Amino acid sequence: MNYKLVFHILGLILRVEAVLMLPAMVIGFASGGGDGRAFLYSALITLAVGHLLSLLPGKGSKMQARDGFACVALCWIVLSLFGALPYVFAGTLPNYVDAVFETVSGFTTTGATVFTFIEGQPMGVLFWRAQTQWMGGMGVLVLALALVPKLGEGSVYLMRAESPGPIKSKLTPRVNDTAKILYSIYIGLTVAEAICLRLAGMPWYDAVIHAFTTISTGGFSVKDASIAAYGSLAIEWIIIVFMFLSGINFALLYFALLRNFRAVFESEELRSYTLMTVGASALIVLNLVVHANWALDARTVTDSVFQVVTLMTTTGYMTYDYVLWPTFSQVILVLVMFAGGCAGSTAGGIKQIRVVLLFKNLRREVHRILHPRVVTTIKSDGDRVDEPILSGISLFFFAYIFLLLLGTLVVAWDDVGFTGAFSASLTCISNVGPAFDVLGPTCNFAFLSNTSKVFLTANMLLGRLEIMPLLLLLFPGLWKKR
Amino acid sequence: MNYKLVFHILGLILRVEAVLMLPAMVIGFASGGGDGRAFLYSALITLAVGHLLSLLPGKGSKMQARDGFACVALCWIVLSLFGALPYVFAGTLPNYVDAVFETVSGFTTTGATVFTFIEGQPMGVLFWRAQTQWMGGMGVLVLALALVPKLGEGSVYLMRAESPGPIKSKLTPRVNDTAKILYSIYIGLTVAEAICLRLAGMPWYDAVIHAFTTISTGGFSVKDASIAAYGSLAIEWIIIVFMFLSGINFALLYFALLRNFRAVFESEELRSYTLMTVGASALIVLNLVVHANWALDARTVTDSVFQVVTLMTTTGYMTYDYVLWPTFSQVILVLVMFAGGCAGSTAGGIKQIRVVLLFKNLRREVHRILHPRVVTTIKSDGDRVDEPILSGISLFFFAYIFLLLLGTLVVAWDDVGFTGAFSASLTCISNVGPAFDVLGPTCNFAFLSNTSKVFLTANMLLGRLEIMPLLLLLFPGLWKKR
Repeated sequence: MNYKLVFHILGLILRVEAVLMLPAMVIGFASGGGDGRAFLYSALITLAVGHLLSLLPGKGSKMQARDGFACVALCWIVLSLFGALPYVFAGTLPNYVDAVFETVSGFTTTGATVFTFIEGQPMGVLFWRAQTQWMGGMGVLVLALALVPKLGEGSVYLMRAESPGPIKSKLTPRVNDTAKILYSIYIGLTVAEAICLRLAGMPWYDAVIHAFTTISTGGFSVKDASIAAYGSLAIEWIIIVFMFLSGINFALLYFALLRNFRAVFESEELRSYTLMTVGASALIVLNLVVHANWALDARTVTDSVFQVVTLMTTTGYMTYDYVLWPTFSQVILVLVMFAGGCAGSTAGGIKQIRVVLLFKNLRREVHRILHPRVVTTIKSDGDRVDEPILSGISLFFFAYIFLLLLGTLVVAWDDVGFTGAFSASLTCISNVGPAFDVLGPTCNFAFLSNTSKVFLTANMLLGRLEIMPLLLLLFPGLWKKR
Repeated sequence: MNYKLVFHILGLILRVEAVLMLPAMVIGFASGGGDGRAFLYSALITLAVGHLLSLLPGKGSKMQARDGFACVALCWIVLSLFGALPYVFAGTLPNYVDAVFETVSGFTTTGATVFTFIEGQPMGVLFWRAQTQWMGGMGVLVLALALVPKLGEGSVYLMRAESPGPIKSKLTPRVNDTAKILYSIYIGLTVAEAICLRLAGMPWYDAVIHAFTTISTGGFSVKDASIAAYGSLAIEWIIIVFMFLSGINFALLYFALLRNFRAVFESEELRSYTLMTVGASALIVLNLVVHANWALDARTVTDSVFQVVTLMTTTGYMTYDYVLWPTFSQVILVLVMFAGGCAGSTAGGIKQIRVVLLFKNLRREVHRILHPRVVTTIKSDGDRVDEPILSGISLFFFAYIFLLLLGTLVVAWDDVGFTGAFSASLTCISNVGPAFDVLGPTCNFAFLSNTSKVFLTANMLLGRLEIMPLLLLLFPGLWKKR
């Protein structure tokens, strides 16, 4: 590994993090909650460590794919370790494991929480909590790429390792131009939603925080009852629309802005994403009406669509405690949590494009038995998909299920029942937030053991970085000096 | 598809089935339970239809891989539809869907039952029930291959499609010689176990039936309390040993008989299978002692090992209602149900060799990022594994999980809770038998809706035939006449 370069980037990213702690500090001091000081100390420590790391000489040497992967993995870990400081210093989460859990849940836009009483937390802390989601949604390194002059030619590897999905779309030849476009759309959506929410009656503070955590598909709220607290159909539909948009590949949103609607309508991933949203919502409405005697009205439809979109885009807000729904509806929700949103969006999960390509690949396998001599290639949106990518997707799926089951086993030691353990592991690796049974949307993760929390924290990071970068850290071959 | 040839084989296999109904008929008449007649009628109908099918002219034309797959799939479906007749005629399962469920559960050696009171069933019916497992364990077509003169050159395709595992070992150049060797070992093990069980105190009838359902890793018992009914450590350990042996690749057992112990000790699959058995048992003992205050004695160890071996070999007997165990132990049991036994054994599940190769392939994927220019091949027991096989294994895994989740969704409509629906689907596709929660080892599948039963029946067949043959039936390309 290219240690010097990696330390240099780590130093840079920590200094960026220190600066990004300032808004929460200002809110903390302004609201007089006593958490302003926690942010001041945290920012100073983070800045100092970041500065020390970048004092190490070296920079110019070239970056390779492995360095990009390792760098992204290390950056996310280090960012989380320092991002957890304010929770500890403010006294809101005195257990450092809890604080790291909450921070990783933020950066990975998961939204699982260990807070037992959210509305009792200081305003600065809640702002920082939402802001970590906003920073993590598009990628912290992508943010750095957009903010600072380019990090040598290897920056493409950083972006590749951090942005989700098996096939990377390059919007422009220059990486930091791409990063700037993506962040412009991201900021645009955030501002638009904040204004809509304000117009629908939310206070500004709530509107901004919910915009942060919608567009990043994070799901942290300032209310214990989440979006249900506002009891407004208008707010719920605004959030549904913005969650849905945030689950779409940002490259497609860019094409739509350029009025290239053909690319949008021809996207197989978008079609699968839309179909799954509509289908899952319809099935839940059917189940609720038939099995639970719900009326077929706007409330039923809204609750169904909201819960499907919030779990499929891996946001994790709630407007109804779906743990009370019949089993069928709950299984539908589990299935959409597996699939997740589109690649290149802020959503987690396996991603729609992978699901589409897995089915295409399976169909080809059957075709191979029928016509053993015919060689067929698999296409996605008209372009041929290379075999290594297909094989990588299958192995990603295996690794995903394996980590999901391993997480289930670890959490099971806390004796939370199979459904609880399985869904806790799934919600973390898919970066959703709430789980089922004793870890449902009205519950929290505080009562779990430290072992479970550490493992779920790892699963959140594995899910967000799509496994490979973190897996790489376990291989001794990486740590050899070149 | 080569219709003539397929009909010819279907006719042959039905006539074999009719003959195999005779032992149960004799027992039925001898025990005076009134079920003798049911078997007589069933055998006559099956014989007549089998005869009609083989009257269709044609035979000599060559068989291809696709015909082998389709033939095996159709044979298993037709065999099940006729094998269900005795249950209906004897009046023990008047609902034909129930009868087919029980028959498929037999042939696929699953062991899930819709009988609510097993000890009240006539002796002939219980014998037939156990015998379907014994017939299905090694493969019904393999049995036909061993019994009748060879079915043209294409018989290799039949065997390949029916016997489990991604890599097929050819013990002898001629297929029906291989079939004879496998069936000799199978019969030898069955006889040996029946004698051991008799010596340990079981009546002959019980001993033979349990030998049938152990060696086939089926799990049907003549007692409602399964093996717990005998309350004998000796019987439990005899069954543990024979279940474990039946979960090993029969080719390895053959090598052991030939004193080629090197092949046995060098088998990576056997090592993984043994390690997983020991590891899972140890973890359950630990969990029971620490969490449930069990004493660390022979009873605890026996119960743990028994439940691990019975679920991992996908047999499905029980000596303790593990649904009462802590969550951790239950999750361990779920994990071993996923993995299952070795390829080329009578066990179900994903199979150890696939799990081993999936991990090797994942490691190579990480290696590829570290050393992008190095091309590496994957070896199993020293032999190179071809890339199409590796890709096929990954896709098999995806199809397995997909069908598992689809089954979960269908069963969920019956509102049995997530754990119930998920484990019912898993136990069927892995051919285990008992599930968890409301479908645990002391419960039965009778209360489920017909839709769930049909779908679980399909999942049992898909699991036993390893998905591809049945999937092929859905493709219109298959039904074209060449």
